[in-house]
Amino acid sequence: MSDSIFKGVEIVGTSSQSFSHAIEVAVACARKTLHNLSWFVVEEMRGGLQQGRLQYQVTLRVFFKLDDIDEPGDAGEGNGT
Amino acid sequence: MSDSIFKGVEIVGTSSQSFSHAIEVAVACARKTLHNLSWFVVEEMRGGLQQGRLQYQVTLRVFFKLDDIDEPGDAGEGNGT
Amino acid sequence: MSDSIFKGVEIVGTSSQSFSHAIEVAVACARKTLHNLSWFVVEEMRGGLQQGRLQYQVTLRVFFKLDDIDEPGDAGEGNGT
Amino acid sequence: MSDSIFKGVEIVGTSSQSFSHAIEVAVACARKTLHNLSWFVVEEMRGGLQQGRLQYQVTLRVFFKLDDIDEPGDAGEGNGT
Amino acid sequence: MSDSIFKGVEIVGTSSQSFSHAIEVAVACARKTLHNLSWFVVEEMRGGLQQGRLQYQVTLRVFFKLDDIDEPGDAGEGNGT
Amino acid sequence: MSDSIFKGVEIVGTSSQSFSHAIEVAVACARKTLHNLSWFVVEEMRGGLQQGRLQYQVTLRVFFKLDDIDEPGDAGEGNGT
Amino acid sequence: MSDSIFKGVEIVGTSSQSFSHAIEVAVACARKTLHNLSWFVVEEMRGGLQQGRLQYQVTLRVFFKLDDIDEPGDAGEGNGT
Amino acid sequence: MSDSIFKGVEIVGTSSQSFSHAIEVAVACARKTLHNLSWFVVEEMRGGLQQGRLQYQVTLRVFFKLDDIDEPGDAGEGNGT
Amino acid sequence: MSDSIFKGVEIVGTSSQSFSHAIEVAVACARKTLHNLSWFVVEEMRGGLQQGRLQYQVTLRVFFKLDDIDEPGDAGEGNGT
Amino acid sequence: MSDSIFKGVEIVGTSSQSFSHAIEVAVACARKTLHNLSWFVVEEMRGGLQQGRLQYQVTLRVFFKLDDIDEPGDAGEGNGT
Amino acid sequence: MSDSIFKGVEIVGTSSQSFSHAIEVAVACARKTLHNLSWFVVEEMRGGLQQGRLQYQVTLRVFFKLDDIDEPGDAGEGNGT
Amino acid sequence: MSDSIFKGVEIVGTSSQSFSHAIEVAVACARKTLHNLSWFVVEEMRGGLQQGRLQYQVTLRVFFKLDDIDEPGDAGEGNGT
Repeated sequence: MSDSIFKGVEIVGTSSQSFSHAIEVAVACARKTLHNLSWFVVEEMRGGLQQGRLQYQVTLRVFFKLDDIDEPGDAGEGNGT
Repeated sequence: MSDSIFKGVEIVGTSSQSFSHAIEVAVACARKTLHNLSWFVVEEMRGGLQQGRLQYQVTLRVFFKLDDIDEPGDAGEGNGT
Repeated sequence: MSDSIFKGVEIVGTSSQSFSHAIEVAVACARKTLHNLSWFVVEEMRGGLQQGRLQYQVTLRVFFKLDDIDEPGDAGEGNGT
Repeated sequence: MSDSIFKGVEIVGTSSQSFSHAIEVAVACARKTLHNLSWFVVEEMRGGLQQGRLQYQVTLRVFFKLDDIDEPGDAGEGNGT
Repeated sequence: MSDSIFKGVEIVGTSSQSFSHAIEVAVACARKTLHNLSWFVVEEMRGGLQQGRLQYQVTLRVFFKLDDIDEPGDAGEGNGT
Repeated sequence: MSDSIFKGVEIVGTSSQSFSHAIEVAVACARKTLHNLSWFVVEEMRGGLQQGRLQYQVTLRVFFKLDDIDEPGDAGEGNGT
Repeated sequence: MSDSIFKGVEIVGTSSQSFSHAIEVAVACARKTLHNLSWFVVEEMRGGLQQGRLQYQVTLRVFFKLDDIDEPGDAGEGNGT
Repeated sequence: MSDSIFKGVEIVGTSSQSFSHAIEVAVACARKTLHNLSWFVVEEMRGGLQQGRLQYQVTLRVFFKLDDIDEPGDAGEGNGT
Repeated sequence: MSDSIFKGVEIVGTSSQSFSHAIEVAVACARKTLHNLSWFVVEEMRGGLQQGRLQYQVTLRVFFKLDDIDEPGDAGEGNGT
Repeated sequence: MSDSIFKGVEIVGTSSQSFSHAIEVAVACARKTLHNLSWFVVEEMRGGLQQGRLQYQVTLRVFFKLDDIDEPGDAGEGNGT
Repeated sequence: MSDSIFKGVEIVGTSSQSFSHAIEVAVACARKTLHNLSWFVVEEMRGGLQQGRLQYQVTLRVFFKLDDIDEPGDAGEGNGT
Repeated sequence: MSDSIFKGVEIVGTSSQSFSHAIEVAVACARKTLHNLSWFVVEEMRGGLQQGRLQYQVTLRVFFKLDDIDEPGDAGEGNGT
């Protein structure tokens, strides 16, 4: 419980199976490119109904612990979009 | 409608002309550095009134489809700020 | 007050001292990897109470001005997570 | 200002031109099948960004005055969906 | 407590007497054209003050149980506005 | 992505099995009387706990594309409740 | 329905009788110093319970039409608090 | 960026032309009686639909910098409504 | 606890020191021109980050008891902006 | 105005008469088992419409001052549900 | 549908399996110490992601009917925390 | 991170010193009668301004882990208010 910093990113997972699966898909995606995942919050649950199919869509905010950022040369996101 | 993943980013566009123009400015900016843009949501509309000028400011959340992320070596955002 | 573009990122600062310190920690972190910081909004104030200690947690949205994005070769965030 | 009853319906207008046009499209649609329109509220403004095009989407709640409903034989909506 | 389906409609009742009366007016109106009314939620309370008179306006969402919809030939709302 | 109009209706699905099933029940109901269903939003999740049983209740807003409404004789909802 | 301007003010009416009376008290107060009252919105209903008494408190936003403000010499609020 | 004080007022601008015009009308009105206008926030967008006409209504909160209030004799709003 | 009327005004205090100081600044300002201050609510906490400095901004709603308004000649705010 | 602690509990009062009566019922109930009641906030107003009857339901948060809790042997709620 | 009183309590259920299981865990817990459970509302869905595990967390408000509280000797919560 | 159950209670701490102190006062109070405190959320910050004094009031929701509730004889809150 030292003083840490976390960053949140917004991810929308989709699934033709269920909302639960859409969440798992989003979390698995986050795990591939981010480490130190800490928690997430479900923000919205929607669904697509076109062409007779049901597609579940869940918007999550996923939070991860930032690496120790005290070292010089820390490569950040930069100021791009 | 396969199971896709989207990411949302928050962008504030400004314009001295109109809210409509501020939205176009923000979307054009997003298009320069992100591909597969999918949808956006207007979150807030404010305006600056200083020095007798009117500046329109629109906060958007812009969502884009993530590239196929199954391949190894996928270069993510990293854990910087 | 020319037409600028800003991006917002969500950062959670924590501190065992106070909410004020947690905000300073989050802002200092943002300053290390982002330039042209412009404003922030306090979104949530929570606290951890485990093991008899009090840990303050503040969720901020920090906004920074994007660099001039008209040049080709502008290195953006890419489409990773 | 006699005691009237109003009903609200939710309509999403879309336009490739502007949010303003999307609102006009939705209101024109409501006028075709409902009379005594009274007021509307803008609930949400979103946009589609697929295939390089920008589509404006506005969700409105449109309210209309119900006909005098004291007469027997008043044909309502029924209990279908 | 079998698995039922309900539909919600938004109704604004008005009254020159009181908010309570405006609610009763709205509910009485709903009862004339809908059966199986189940519950309502008060969404907003406003008032008109023009011409020295006070008009109470209450927005309700009224929910009613849909008839058994398994039979063919069930006459629904159709796709009109 | 031509300029279309959509209408939203509020439906509450219930199930003794799960929230997922309650959503499927509501969507199946909407499909019986409405065509061109497009998307839905989950608004609220509640549950009944009486008599030792658990009943899941999900409030959805379901949106469907309105038929081409330019033709005369288009039969709308009318001004009933 | 010419292009008018309205201003909103926030007033809290209290009453030992009822919420209805508290609203009437607030509206009557607004009528004493403001003319062209147009509408109000109920924002919050609270109550005081101290010393065995029940005091009803209603927060309203009251809107009134501004006088024609084109004339010079129009006495505004000034820039005081 | 010295320590300043701002006050916010709520203004509803209306226009038969557009929401954009309604905002300009409201800001122009504010400029007539208040100086040091600083920023505004769009709170609500509604419209009147009576008598076949469309009237746009925008609720803004307009903020202005208070004059230096350290001098005695500063004439404030007083305690009227 | 007699039947009183209160009015709310929105004030933004700023400080280069802390949010606490920004609140004190706003309250002190309100005390100079309004009497019978009763309570306040913190609505928003933001901060400016330009030019390497941190400016705290707190939006308060401050409520004060209106003077006995039964006397004729009571000087109100008038209908200016 | 010494430094006190209050606790809030959520109570739903119901009445076949009116929302006002439902509030009185809830407050009377709270008075039976809690002392030092201080204030309440109305959170939601709903109604039941089954079997042709109208039942008013009001959700309140009722706050009461905690007894001086410095003494040992203070009997709290415990850690049960 | 006689005039009843209900109380709401806030419970957070967790599960390593699913949100559905977390809800069942919370309801089962409530059933152990409270009788006359009536309904619940899902307030928030979050998840823990630490140490490579996914923990589902659901915040519910559970409402139960209060026993007839007219009898003397009714043992309430007392005024503890 | 086994499957635990938490309960939330709403506490209002007050202080004549600062919001920070009001939070500490509320947490200290919770610690006296509840064990296994886990986290809290700041819900509202208000202040009293009567009689020339400033009193800070913070509403917290404090969550604590419920004891193992599988044992018979677990003493719950009961069904009192």
